[in-house]
Amino acid sequence: MAPNDIVALLGEVGAWGVNLHDNDLVPIDATAAERDSIVRSFKKACEANGMVVPMATVSLFFHPVFRDGAFTANDPEVRSYAVQKTMRAMDIGAELGAKIFVLWGGREGVETDACRPAQDAIKRLREAVNYLCQYSIDRGYGMKFALEAKPNEPRSDIYMSTTGNYLGFIPTLDHPEMVGVNPEMAHEHMAGLNFMHAVAQAWEAGKLFHIDLNDQMPGRYDQDLRFGSANIKSSFWLVKFLEDVRYGGPRHFDAHAYRTEDYEGVKDFARGCMRTYLMLKEKACRWNQDSEIQQILAELGSEGKAPKVGKYSREGASGLLSYVFDKGKILQKRLPYERLDQLTVDLLLGAR
Amino acid sequence: MAPNDIVALLGEVGAWGVNLHDNDLVPIDATAAERDSIVRSFKKACEANGMVVPMATVSLFFHPVFRDGAFTANDPEVRSYAVQKTMRAMDIGAELGAKIFVLWGGREGVETDACRPAQDAIKRLREAVNYLCQYSIDRGYGMKFALEAKPNEPRSDIYMSTTGNYLGFIPTLDHPEMVGVNPEMAHEHMAGLNFMHAVAQAWEAGKLFHIDLNDQMPGRYDQDLRFGSANIKSSFWLVKFLEDVRYGGPRHFDAHAYRTEDYEGVKDFARGCMRTYLMLKEKACRWNQDSEIQQILAELGSEGKAPKVGKYSREGASGLLSYVFDKGKILQKRLPYERLDQLTVDLLLGAR
Amino acid sequence: MAPNDIVALLGEVGAWGVNLHDNDLVPIDATAAERDSIVRSFKKACEANGMVVPMATVSLFFHPVFRDGAFTANDPEVRSYAVQKTMRAMDIGAELGAKIFVLWGGREGVETDACRPAQDAIKRLREAVNYLCQYSIDRGYGMKFALEAKPNEPRSDIYMSTTGNYLGFIPTLDHPEMVGVNPEMAHEHMAGLNFMHAVAQAWEAGKLFHIDLNDQMPGRYDQDLRFGSANIKSSFWLVKFLEDVRYGGPRHFDAHAYRTEDYEGVKDFARGCMRTYLMLKEKACRWNQDSEIQQILAELGSEGKAPKVGKYSREGASGLLSYVFDKGKILQKRLPYERLDQLTVDLLLGAR
Amino acid sequence: MAPNDIVALLGEVGAWGVNLHDNDLVPIDATAAERDSIVRSFKKACEANGMVVPMATVSLFFHPVFRDGAFTANDPEVRSYAVQKTMRAMDIGAELGAKIFVLWGGREGVETDACRPAQDAIKRLREAVNYLCQYSIDRGYGMKFALEAKPNEPRSDIYMSTTGNYLGFIPTLDHPEMVGVNPEMAHEHMAGLNFMHAVAQAWEAGKLFHIDLNDQMPGRYDQDLRFGSANIKSSFWLVKFLEDVRYGGPRHFDAHAYRTEDYEGVKDFARGCMRTYLMLKEKACRWNQDSEIQQILAELGSEGKAPKVGKYSREGASGLLSYVFDKGKILQKRLPYERLDQLTVDLLLGAR
Repeated sequence: MAPNDIVALLGEVGAWGVNLHDNDLVPIDATAAERDSIVRSFKKACEANGMVVPMATVSLFFHPVFRDGAFTANDPEVRSYAVQKTMRAMDIGAELGAKIFVLWGGREGVETDACRPAQDAIKRLREAVNYLCQYSIDRGYGMKFALEAKPNEPRSDIYMSTTGNYLGFIPTLDHPEMVGVNPEMAHEHMAGLNFMHAVAQAWEAGKLFHIDLNDQMPGRYDQDLRFGSANIKSSFWLVKFLEDVRYGGPRHFDAHAYRTEDYEGVKDFARGCMRTYLMLKEKACRWNQDSEIQQILAELGSEGKAPKVGKYSREGASGLLSYVFDKGKILQKRLPYERLDQLTVDLLLGAR
Repeated sequence: MAPNDIVALLGEVGAWGVNLHDNDLVPIDATAAERDSIVRSFKKACEANGMVVPMATVSLFFHPVFRDGAFTANDPEVRSYAVQKTMRAMDIGAELGAKIFVLWGGREGVETDACRPAQDAIKRLREAVNYLCQYSIDRGYGMKFALEAKPNEPRSDIYMSTTGNYLGFIPTLDHPEMVGVNPEMAHEHMAGLNFMHAVAQAWEAGKLFHIDLNDQMPGRYDQDLRFGSANIKSSFWLVKFLEDVRYGGPRHFDAHAYRTEDYEGVKDFARGCMRTYLMLKEKACRWNQDSEIQQILAELGSEGKAPKVGKYSREGASGLLSYVFDKGKILQKRLPYERLDQLTVDLLLGAR
Repeated sequence: MAPNDIVALLGEVGAWGVNLHDNDLVPIDATAAERDSIVRSFKKACEANGMVVPMATVSLFFHPVFRDGAFTANDPEVRSYAVQKTMRAMDIGAELGAKIFVLWGGREGVETDACRPAQDAIKRLREAVNYLCQYSIDRGYGMKFALEAKPNEPRSDIYMSTTGNYLGFIPTLDHPEMVGVNPEMAHEHMAGLNFMHAVAQAWEAGKLFHIDLNDQMPGRYDQDLRFGSANIKSSFWLVKFLEDVRYGGPRHFDAHAYRTEDYEGVKDFARGCMRTYLMLKEKACRWNQDSEIQQILAELGSEGKAPKVGKYSREGASGLLSYVFDKGKILQKRLPYERLDQLTVDLLLGAR
Repeated sequence: MAPNDIVALLGEVGAWGVNLHDNDLVPIDATAAERDSIVRSFKKACEANGMVVPMATVSLFFHPVFRDGAFTANDPEVRSYAVQKTMRAMDIGAELGAKIFVLWGGREGVETDACRPAQDAIKRLREAVNYLCQYSIDRGYGMKFALEAKPNEPRSDIYMSTTGNYLGFIPTLDHPEMVGVNPEMAHEHMAGLNFMHAVAQAWEAGKLFHIDLNDQMPGRYDQDLRFGSANIKSSFWLVKFLEDVRYGGPRHFDAHAYRTEDYEGVKDFARGCMRTYLMLKEKACRWNQDSEIQQILAELGSEGKAPKVGKYSREGASGLLSYVFDKGKILQKRLPYERLDQLTVDLLLGAR
């Protein structure tokens, strides 16, 4: 589909924003004049459809020149080209008003670890991200970067395989305050991990700059299923988390319709993503207001007389060390998690 | 087996050090006098067998009081007891000369996310680790902490599921310089991840404080197989990494013999771990000296005339932006990774 | 819990039947007199609580004598003992009225394929099952056997890893008509497979003799979670299948409560299994009556003019071979599966 | 690559045979004249390069007309077209001398189980295979069919997900003797299963008609890696099995070179598959001749005085039931599997 048609379709189904890879909009070998004309026309289409462009990104994986990676490729020329291509994509993003720039290193990985020392790949990645931060500062773009992890596919092993790895990488950068993460549900599920836990860690560290919502069964190829269509309960915990902490960023549905669909089916799919999000949001609200659920939670957090952990002090430590804990008594406190979970299932199934 | 017998067995098979959970040595409800006598006797057994105790750790998962976690449990009394128990284990570790203290939160997780907000678990974990760092400082123990991740089992989802998550958590602590990671091969494999990549990221960030070596097939229960017995090639890349960067810490084999074995079999198993490590180390050395392999690697890194990424400067950026990359020419450079990998297989199979 | 207490608990929560491993009822080294007295007492407890015993089974995995398997163990004495133990468990089952006997070979597997040729394991398994069929015939027990697959745990690889493998094994037996399968949801999910598809294949082949309902996330240790608590949608398709085909056997919940629970929690758990099954059954009924869903299904199955496959005949084949299919026209037929699936999600969430 | 070039390349690297999907050779919309000319030319190329065509197959997954499956599609016209296309591919196969016809139902599956009852898919599949068997008989082709399983990709769940499922399906056909399986290593590994166990079950049942060799890490997208490049040890057990039982069919390497390779790299890759197979074959031979290994195996199989299972007789059963097994004594027999496995590792690494 042409970019302007995508904008029209999204407008029709009621979406708020749109994001595109650089080359979904501007062909990789377009002249400067072609590029300008396309961007101008797209900007108008967005305005006409009341659509914002909150985020921009760059394809560093589609063209075969990136067959061995982009920022981490063994060929220094590929690394330079990848940075140039990203700078140009940032220019387009700035022009369209994007304040978040997503970096997904689709081919930053290996089939055989013979090809490069893994620590070199990390150093190269750091060099590129540092460079791009400085470029944003230099141009006054005010952009922030959101790094997106994935464990594998299309490479056998991708460096920075989970959101956690990026959270560990960011503090080693020159401008850690400019860089956060873009967790994708399907990517974390591919490794069988609890997506909401990764999102919560990113958020708690002030690093949840963007999020990609879709769905996926664990341990499979990248499925990008309609949000909420495979794992209803995990999707619920995620929506509940985002709403409870009042996450202010866009809810980006980075999914695609089944390959069996036609144009109408793609609209069904897009509407389904948003509809299921809203249904789960409403359930999260009811969960928070359910008196039986809230009573169980209140009892779980009740405090006893034992010293608290809190902030360390020599006196506190001495008191804690000498306190005699009654393990038998602790074990008598109920943890009615089966009941709590069944109430959640009842609520999800509309039986409560 | 009794701790002193373990020391004797390890001495017999030629091990260098030994590590124990607090309660493998001292029963959980031992009196102070019993505790002192046991630790003294164990210290002697170590000296008699020429065995050092490089690392100490605490069991925060075995006793049912930790059925809902330790540092992250909902019951504040459990959290306090977990910190107290860890302080006491640090005391024992200090007495035995350990400079690394491993924290593995075996039950810090959930079966249902109904039971607590995930961000609260992270805050509680931070509070505990900050407290323990201060305790080490206060007592002058000079200990460093190594945090060990695991995706699941015995809980359905464990917080801090991969080494990456801990690398992201550490910079949010009061004393990040005192805290690193203890990656375990089996735990990373459970999530289907490339273990060496995680180890390389930790090492490159100066955070590889300890390592647990064993083996595991992806997507299964925690197997703790003999090192090198399931994934020969991944084990090779790991050993090569540790030797190439001259990792100076202990190679800790945190595995266990098949359940079918008797006492002699446990010795076979322990010897096998060390033997396979040494065979792979020798192969890593030969790999580095193999002239065909080295020639391919040299050609891969050859540089062209395009501007390098390097450090950002306005002039450099301008030059990079305007450079015309010849994608067709780049694509002509060979990437003979199949050959490189086959040479590795040949070398592993002793055919080279 | 004591067997008679389990019966009381199950009666209290409204269960219909109960199944036990031989040694959950009768200790492995009980005398004949003890065994008789226990079985008699249990039978009375069942009658008192209106509980039937539709299925019996044998533990061939708990005692360390089975550390290398039972029917497939390398030691011929273990194989003989395993058959003897099963015969005795069949005697108990017959006494309690069980007409289905489940065989789960928990330790029929390997950590290393060095230990035996895999084909020998299959031959030994066949010998044992043939023997046991003959024993049932000889005693006039009228029992049928239901074989239960599992991919791994506690062994690294278990022979007959999926329900499909057993469906392939059964036709090679002396009395295939006496032998079917007992698919377990968690076991099939461990390998990331669609459980309902396996159940449907077994049912379609007349081999669905029993079923074990629970829940499990893919690619993990054996979780045995409360039915419907992890995968709401997969559980729905399963319930819908069982109800649509009017499966007549017991719905056996082979799960266990979270380790955090107490006695009351175990009842919450047991009630939850049944409650969720019934909620999903009601939704399956509504799905079948939903006019929009049914209209889509009707359109999907509409037939054109092309020759049908049907039964082979020379004339039919000749007609089929020469028919010109219009691929373009075929591609125009809509397959509105996104819509169909979203209607299902709406229905599950109670929004329809 | 053009088919005739593939034949030339395979000839150059020393391959014995070649297999192609119908449309890799003949374009899907070729006229009868084009088709005849292409097949004739290909036949000559094979003869010129001394290459046989042991197996033929049909693409029922590439063209979008099969987006909802082929034999199991909801549209009856698609099902008829799929059978027609297969008949024509059989005609080509017969002309080229193929005696095995592989059926891989790449798109026979679902994203949502709403779209059809799973049992209907099985019935449709049976109808198609029965029809094709009859066609082979009718034409006197003397072909056998080898069915190839896969758990997922490109569909979310593929029916007949493992080799075991096909082994269970075959006995329900009209001509089970004409139908076997074509297990593919990567497909079984995707589900985390032990490939050799599946192959052994197929072989033991007389159903191993063909085999696809490659490699794959568990729980990922379909990788089709060079044989022996990911799982050296599993590859060894497989080669050892095939050689031990003197499997007489072709060793078909159904893999592809890394996407980073050029034409020379594809040859490196093809040579690597064969080379690793032969190296492992030689190791299997040495394993069978290793006296320490053989002594351990001999001791494992030693028999005691207990009654054997064997064939059922009333007297035998009575003797078995009354025999008193000494579990303590059984437990004293050693099972030195760690040693056996380490000897295998030593042998694989060339240290023995």
